[in-house]
This record gives sequence, C-alpha cells and structure tokens, in this order.
Amino acid sequence: MDRNDFRRELGQQLRVDSIRCSDAGGSGHPTSSMSAADLMAVLLDGHLELDFDNPTDPANDHLVFSKGHASPLLYSCFKAAGAITDEELLSFRKLGSKFEGHPTPVIPWVDVATGSLGQGLPVAVGLALSAKRLDRTPGRVWCLCGDSEMAEGSIWEAFDHASFWELDNLIAIVDVNRLGQTGETMHGWDLALYAERARAFGWEAIEVDGHDVGAIEDAYAQAEQTSGRPAVVLARTKKGAGVKAVEDQPGKHGKPLEDAEEAIAELGGARDLTLEVKKPGQAAESHRFDTPGGERPSYDSGEEVATRKAYGEALKALGDTRGDVVALDGEVSNSTYSEIFRDAHPERYIELYIAEQQLVATAVALQRRGWKPFGSTFAAFLTRAYDFIRMAAVSRATLKLCGSHAGVSIGEDGPSQMGLEDLAAFRAVHGSTVLYPSDANQTVRLVELMADLDGIAYLRTHRGGLPVIYGPDEEFEVGGSRVVRDGDDVTLVGAGVTLHEALEAAEQLAADGVQARVIDLYSLKPVDAETLGRAAAETGAIVTAEDHWPEGGLGEAVLSALADAGESCRVRKLGVEIMPGSGTPDELLREAGIDSGAIAAAARELVGARATA
Amino acid sequence: MDRNDFRRELGQQLRVDSIRCSDAGGSGHPTSSMSAADLMAVLLDGHLELDFDNPTDPANDHLVFSKGHASPLLYSCFKAAGAITDEELLSFRKLGSKFEGHPTPVIPWVDVATGSLGQGLPVAVGLALSAKRLDRTPGRVWCLCGDSEMAEGSIWEAFDHASFWELDNLIAIVDVNRLGQTGETMHGWDLALYAERARAFGWEAIEVDGHDVGAIEDAYAQAEQTSGRPAVVLARTKKGAGVKAVEDQPGKHGKPLEDAEEAIAELGGARDLTLEVKKPGQAAESHRFDTPGGERPSYDSGEEVATRKAYGEALKALGDTRGDVVALDGEVSNSTYSEIFRDAHPERYIELYIAEQQLVATAVALQRRGWKPFGSTFAAFLTRAYDFIRMAAVSRATLKLCGSHAGVSIGEDGPSQMGLEDLAAFRAVHGSTVLYPSDANQTVRLVELMADLDGIAYLRTHRGGLPVIYGPDEEFEVGGSRVVRDGDDVTLVGAGVTLHEALEAAEQLAADGVQARVIDLYSLKPVDAETLGRAAAETGAIVTAEDHWPEGGLGEAVLSALADAGESCRVRKLGVEIMPGSGTPDELLREAGIDSGAIAAAARELVGARATA
Repeated sequence: MDRNDFRRELGQQLRVDSIRCSDAGGSGHPTSSMSAADLMAVLLDGHLELDFDNPTDPANDHLVFSKGHASPLLYSCFKAAGAITDEELLSFRKLGSKFEGHPTPVIPWVDVATGSLGQGLPVAVGLALSAKRLDRTPGRVWCLCGDSEMAEGSIWEAFDHASFWELDNLIAIVDVNRLGQTGETMHGWDLALYAERARAFGWEAIEVDGHDVGAIEDAYAQAEQTSGRPAVVLARTKKGAGVKAVEDQPGKHGKPLEDAEEAIAELGGARDLTLEVKKPGQAAESHRFDTPGGERPSYDSGEEVATRKAYGEALKALGDTRGDVVALDGEVSNSTYSEIFRDAHPERYIELYIAEQQLVATAVALQRRGWKPFGSTFAAFLTRAYDFIRMAAVSRATLKLCGSHAGVSIGEDGPSQMGLEDLAAFRAVHGSTVLYPSDANQTVRLVELMADLDGIAYLRTHRGGLPVIYGPDEEFEVGGSRVVRDGDDVTLVGAGVTLHEALEAAEQLAADGVQARVIDLYSLKPVDAETLGRAAAETGAIVTAEDHWPEGGLGEAVLSALADAGESCRVRKLGVEIMPGSGTPDELLREAGIDSGAIAAAARELVGARATA
Repeated sequence: MDRNDFRRELGQQLRVDSIRCSDAGGSGHPTSSMSAADLMAVLLDGHLELDFDNPTDPANDHLVFSKGHASPLLYSCFKAAGAITDEELLSFRKLGSKFEGHPTPVIPWVDVATGSLGQGLPVAVGLALSAKRLDRTPGRVWCLCGDSEMAEGSIWEAFDHASFWELDNLIAIVDVNRLGQTGETMHGWDLALYAERARAFGWEAIEVDGHDVGAIEDAYAQAEQTSGRPAVVLARTKKGAGVKAVEDQPGKHGKPLEDAEEAIAELGGARDLTLEVKKPGQAAESHRFDTPGGERPSYDSGEEVATRKAYGEALKALGDTRGDVVALDGEVSNSTYSEIFRDAHPERYIELYIAEQQLVATAVALQRRGWKPFGSTFAAFLTRAYDFIRMAAVSRATLKLCGSHAGVSIGEDGPSQMGLEDLAAFRAVHGSTVLYPSDANQTVRLVELMADLDGIAYLRTHRGGLPVIYGPDEEFEVGGSRVVRDGDDVTLVGAGVTLHEALEAAEQLAADGVQARVIDLYSLKPVDAETLGRAAAETGAIVTAEDHWPEGGLGEAVLSALADAGESCRVRKLGVEIMPGSGTPDELLREAGIDSGAIAAAARELVGARATA
C-alpha cells in the first residue's frame, strides 16, 4: 500500500475504533477523536519515536493529549501500535479499566492526567524543558491540543515559557475543529489568528489541512526541522470527520454516535492495521547531577528564624547531597528563600516567573522524568494553580510544594498576600501530605522527609521569625505531633505561629493555676489521632488555634482525628473569622482572635465551664 | 504653568507621596509606584473622567490598578485629586486604615481588590463588558498593569475576551519597568514583543516612553480614538524613576527607600498640587432590562430530576422576574443547564468560553455595577479560578457560583471531571455561603435565596437525576437543614446524592430494627448546629456521608457544628477515600464507600458499639 493510502486507512481505523469503544462504553467523545485521527495516523507512522515496550526509556518521545476527552483516539492509537488489545480498548470507561473517560498515568504511556482543558500543553512544556535542561535527552514532546482550550490562560503561559526556554523539542498540534461543547469556539476556523498569536509568542506556526495526510507529513517535517523555538501545527479539521451524521455538526459533542454500525460502514468498516511505531533512534540516559555534599543546617535554641528561611536552607542542603532535587519558583524566590537553592544549584533551579499554573505543570512533568521537584511561591498564590494540583493527584504525581507567607501574621501587606485557605485546599487533595512546621530545625527535618514522600506533599511556612524550640537532632515523622508542654487541665493545639501563641497562653494560664498541655500539630495530614485522642481523654478540653480561616484547616483536622479515634471532648476552634487588613503581625493576630490572649481566654472558658458543670 | 510642566510636577508629587507613605508605613512598594507616576499624572489631568464625590455614578470612568502593589501611587493619586487627605495617605498600611498594603473596595474608588497579579485586567475587561453590554453607559475603563504580570495566563484570557467583545471602552496601560521582584522579567524592555502579542490578540498597541508626558498624552489620545477594539499603551519606564539610589536598580522591590528624605529632596521636595479630575462629560443611567414575569418551576414528588437541571430552570425563572440577574458560563451551558437562562434571556447571558478565571473576574465586575451574576461551570473547573474566588472575598464581592457534576456520581467521565474538593474550597472562603441541594424543588428555592445573599454564595449540583422529595411550596432557609426521617437510634447526615443513599440506608436499618434519623444538610455554611446538636444528644451517634473527599466538606462541617454547639457523640465520617476511575454512578458510589450499604454498615457499627459498651 502507498504510504499515504496506509495513513488514510489508519486514520479511518482510528475513527472506527474511537466510535467502537465509545459505543461499547456507552459514553465518550468520538467526534472530538475523529477530527484528529489523520493527524495521529501520520504521527504514529514515522514521526513519533516511542518504544512501547519500554515506556520509561529516557530516549522516548512523549505524546500528551491535552484534549484528554479525545481518549478514544488515544487508546485507538495504542491499539494500532500493538500496545493494547481490542478487548482492552473496548473496556473503555468500564469500572476497573485503565482506559478511563480521560487518560491518566495508570496507563504506562500516559505522562499526565488530562481532561481539565489547558493542562496538557503546560505539562508538555515541562517535559520538553526537563529533556533539554535536566535530562539532556534527545526525545521530542508531541502535544495534541483542542481549539477550545486555546481560551485557557494556562495555554498562553505554556506558549510563553516554551519559546522563552527555546524548546525546539516540543511540537504542539492544535486540532482546530471549530466546534466546542456548546457551539462554535471564539475563533472558529481562523487559523491565521492562531498562527499570528503563536508567532507573537515566539513559536514557529504551520497551518495545514488536518485531513490531508500528505500535507500533514510536510507540516510535521517542517516542525521537526524548526530550531531554537517550539513549533505548532495548526490543523483545520472537521469534528466527526468522515461520518455525515455528525461531521461538522453542532450538538454532537461528548456522546456515542447514534448509529455506530452505519457510521463504521460509512468509514469502510473495521480494520485491523497494526504498525510498528518507530523506536528512539539513539539510546539515551538521563543526566545525573554531581553533588558537592554538605550538612543539614541547624539553628540554636531561642534564635528567631523564619520557617521560610529554614525551608530555603534545608532545600539547598538537600540539593547538596541529592542530585535529583530540583527547585522551582514563581518569581518570589527571595521571599520563599528558594533563592538559596538557586544560588547553590543554578542548573537545578527553574524560574517560572509569575505563572503559578506553569510552575505546578512543570513540577508534574519533572517528577514524571524522575526528578524530585520542590515548587514554591506564596501560599496565597498556590490557589492560582489549584486545578493543576487537583489534577496532579489524578496523575498520581509525586511533588512537593511550599507555600510561604501564610496567614495574617505576614502583617502589613494585607489579605491579598495572606494564605488563609491553603490548609483546607491541600488537605482536600487525594493522597496529600500537609506539613506545617513550628520552628526552623523542624522545618529542616520535614523538608528532608518530604523528599521521599509519595504523592503531593505541602509545606506551609511563615514570613516572620519564630523562636527555635527544637534541637537540631530531634527527629520528627510525618503523621506525628509533639507535646511541647505537659499539663492535664486543658490542651492547646497549634502549629507554626499559633504554637508559639499557645505556649505563651500556657504561661498565662499557669499563672492562674491552669496547667495546659500544648501540642505542636506539625503534621495535619496524616494527623496524629493517638496523641490528640489521649489529650482529649486526659485533659477533657481542647483549644485549637490556626492562622487560617476556621474551615478545613487545623481545627477540623483535630475534630476529624478525634472522631476517627472515637474520642470526644469539648473543643474550641480558633481561626481567622474576620477579613483582615493591614497592621503589624501582633496586631493582626490579636484582631483575628488567634493570639495568646484569645487562646488563654478560650481555655479558661472551657475549664470554667467544666468546673461549674 | 505649562500643562506639560504641571504634569511633570504632578508626576514628581506622586513619586514623593509614594515615598512618603511607604516611609510612614514602614513597608510598601514605592519603586513600583515611581515608574508609573508620569503615566498617572497625565491620566489624572484630562483623561480620567471620574466624579470622586459620586463614586457610584454609572457615568464614571473606572480606574483599576492591576499592579495592586503600586498602592502608594494609587493613594497618592487620590490625594492629588483632593479625594483623601495627607493624613489619610500617611495612614498607609496601619491597622484600621482603609489604605491597606494592596487596594480593596473598602475605598470607594476601588472596584476590585488587587495584589494577586493578573487579576485586575480581567476584572477591568468585565467592567468594560458590563458597560457595553449591560449598563450601556459611555465611561471608560483604565487599567494599570505591571509587566511582571504579563506572565500570568489570566492576562491573556483578558486580552482574548476584550477584543472578542470589541471593548473599545477599555484602555490598558502596561508599566514596563523591566524589573520584577527578584530580577529582570521574562521580556525586559522588549516593548515590540508585547506590542506584537497585543496586536495578535486583536488590540491596538501603542508604544511610548513612560516618562515623557507629551508622548504619553499622544498615546492616550490615540488609545481614546481607537474604535472597535481595546487599546493598550505599552510604556517603557524605569522602576524607581527619579531617584538615583533606586532607579532601574535590582533589589529595590517592595521596600521603603533607605533615605526617604534625600530621595524627596532629589525629586524637588514635597509638593501640594491638587487638581480637578474631570467629571463625566454626560450623565448616564444604567440600562435596566424588562422582565416578562413568570412562575417558579416545580417538580412532582418522585420524579427523577437532576439538580443541575433545576438550577437552570430556576435561574431562568429568576430572570423572568428580576432584570438584574445575569448568567455566565464557561462553555458548558448545556451541562450546567445555564443554557435555559441563555435561551430565555440572551441579552443577560455572557459566554466566557473555557476561561474560568475570566468568568469569575467578569462576575466580580458585574456585581460591582449592581448586577446579580450567577456563574456556572463544572464544580471541578471552578478550582481553576480559586485565586479569583479568594480575591473576590477580599473585594467584598457578592456573587453566585454554581458547580455542577459534583462527585463520583457523575460516573464514566472519570476523576478529572469530578468536583470532589469544591465544598472544602468554598467553605474556606471568607463570608461564603455553601449550599448543596438534595432535590429539584429545594434547588429552586435555594437559587431564589442566593439572589439576595451577600458575599460569595456557592451551589453544588449533581449530574444525575435524584427523586423529588420535597413539595414545590416547601420553604428552606440558608443555615437550615431538614429532618427527612425520624428515628432515635442513630442519625444519618447527607446532602445531594448521599441524602438519597442515607434514606435507602435508613430503610435497610429499619429492616434490622434500627430507627435512623436522616438529616438533609443542604446548607453547609452556615450550618444548622441546633438540629445537629439535638441529633447528637438524642441519637448518640452520627454517620455523615458525602460525595467529596473526606476533608473540609460535609463531615467536617458537622463536626465543627457539634463542637460549636458543645455537643459530642460518636461520629463516623464517610467520604471518597480512593481515587475513583470510570464506572457507572452506582458502581462508583459503592466503590467509594458512600452508598446506602456503606452508610448502613457504618451506622450498624456505631449502634453495635454502643450496645456492647
């Protein structure tokens, strides 16, 4: 068969299989798959270099479906490549099948979970950046985007960074099928508009008829030859191409074809083509960085050190001994103190500028390539990437994020800069770990522990200095806590700045003859239910205090732990109940009702209520 | 004084005052203010049309500082305009002052809280869109952006939408001072690059020397004459302009000048210029929409109706009787059912395409202009705009958001589409209301109630049909709950799909002789602590079930309510503990351990434990 004929046939097979699996699954997006079938047929046949038997081979190309809803097409590609059976394909969207409605890395050849539009391309940029700057491997990253998702800002963060880093190992293919979920996209088939934007963002832009396999070949060749910048192939396609009942028709998004059998017949029937997808042309090993060695930082008891500073120093020290640690920051490295790592290990520091979505996407990509990414910005600004963090969990990603400048205790900058929802947001991420150190030596230990945690680990740091209360050799564990003061009348639970307020409250209470136990709850998830349960049983009253909104943070972590442990006692939860403004840290802690005075007052109330009960 | 001389003098005054207030406050961003001082001097003197005495006059121009950290400059402008005193200016960043580190609408002439970069311009787009499409008023929207924030994807969503809607009433000014917080921005002083991008996004782009008041005048005149599309003035400036010690120097971001006195002397000393800012040239009233009238939808008992469908129908009905209701959607209106409103009230429907950040920003703008915006998309995709939602609370915004397709009960589409963190995220928003209806008639009532709530109100809806259990005339209140089945052995608490699972569980338990009370907790914030406390006291055991991660949602709302009420009992919290895949809704509810069987089993365990205790 002539190569173009083969590719056309393969395109038809991908359409037929997309229809078949959507039909078998009873739902799915066959029409969004059909528009890109010819684009994928040409890609599979001679362009993509991927050893399906060795999915983690560092020499492999990567294929990211940013339009994750075109999963029928992706899985049909896997079948055409001989990587999965027809039976597996037809398990689409069934319980227990790896072939879910949207692709996830449960499938070996999927790098990142997609399905929230505008995320695949940013991760593809991260993969290409990793290959170029860290892995130093030759493979390409191919990314199939939909035209609807070009409306997402994150796509333009990705465009911006890809050219900034001169990622000529990245080729994006935009399937401009004109039709979104509810109607025409903002820009329809205006390929020239997309091309102009891409060029303005520093990309090579190539327009092509996405159903002309010969033209696609030429476009890919041109893209592959592009040097010094990324390339995008803008393909004019028709949604549902090849089947009259749905081709370029509105109202045909996201559902199986009404008459699958007829559609398959119209496409020339089922085929069983298998092709040998090219293997990487040359072997490659990921670069490994030498490490100078070094020692963990330590701090003297009583010294006032900001936990954000300790984070930076701990991260640098980690980088001294581990070559797989990489730091990323959103242009606030002198605030988060990741600059200490940057200055020591510039090759392993990636500046993402003020683009938090691209920051998290890059971290997701790096961990896929075996790195240990630590990303940092203000806790408040991680909310900008919450959808990416949510999806990172679906990707089963292992990454470490640090949010600095938590809480009202930042002071004068005001509420826009105060992370006050970060604990709630990160606790509500599947499989996450949430850590919140209370002093500098503890921060160092927790940063070390984070390095080997699976899943998404979050560390919350403060802007202001906190007195060092732990020795440099003290051990901490994820899921642990520390009783930092004994007492049996009431328990005060805090972390970070509120631990120190609680300690001060305990002093005030002691003056009244009330002996307060104080617990440092540095690990919010997992949480030390045993120690908390014991405190409930032994002291009968708990006051929690957090520099965070009252919902979803430390206080509710304590309540959940008690419920799980089957213990109960009076609990008074203190959090930030007002919208803060500017002021000094002390003024704002007092105004928010989470300072030592407020904690002591709440404790007295609980103890008093018990006494009179 | 020659007009250019006056403007230069005014620019110097704005610099001096920016330095003075930062010095008085002990922190702040004077250098980021000084770069844009000449730009603002020319704007204030003859371009901006704003009646400071009547800040809500619909004819006013709007001035948005997207680079909110340049608040010293903004407040200095207010002083120059005679709107605030020098004393007020010098209260900068002090406790209780309206003049916080970053501007908020606590100040009458501030439309939106900024300080999280990349948010002001999207809101400015919303204001301009409101003026053009809804208010039909002639005022302009001016927006001062920083160059660092051009890295935020949300800026490009704003660029995209502004030209799409042909907003020639919008003028953005980009203060390209080259220096970010830690060093040079991605693109330095490459004004041509920014101009090319702006033009590719359909804007008029004008490059100018941002310290040449004559050139700025010409640039503004050209921008004002631009028709059919928005204009951006790209100004080459120097950070810290005018003071040698800081001008164009790295490391001078975000702190007062070391020697303020010397700097002020270098700038020619303090001045006390006041100018009459132009008032709007013509009076204007906001357009009001006629309403056809109509009746609330109602559903028959036992009918299976998706709450998302009821949302759409309720919203349409609300629009039938209230002309101030506006709907916005992120290109999924046939899923959220906001399409029902769109079809009935097309003039009051705004399509934001797949740009959730721009969606929320537009809603923030509309509420500022007196509209009642209801924004909808999948609950999962509202996470994309979490930073905007957080900041909307700082803006004291009143808006209504609906997240559809909540939970594993969506079925086959898989986890990328499942909102499983939305309750945690929205509970942790200051002053928010979180509603989660369990049937269609209740949804209608809650949508009606939302219309008049202050702050950020969130409604969670489900994809699948749920049996109607309430009559069409039943009243509900925010902060209420409903005991839908009586019983004294154990209490089951659910909402949405899990309420129906709980009802089924109660049937199963009744067969074993266990009488379960079932509570519909349709209002998670505020929450009905009284009813929950009574249930704790009377039944001694509570099982909560939610189609949500176990953290921060319904279960923890119940625990917090009990703690606040001073009640305690055994509580077993059921939530989604596994990462779901694809499957049918029933399969996934079962696999996640939140179906009737799991609820009944948990209840039996609690009751059994009590019996043997």
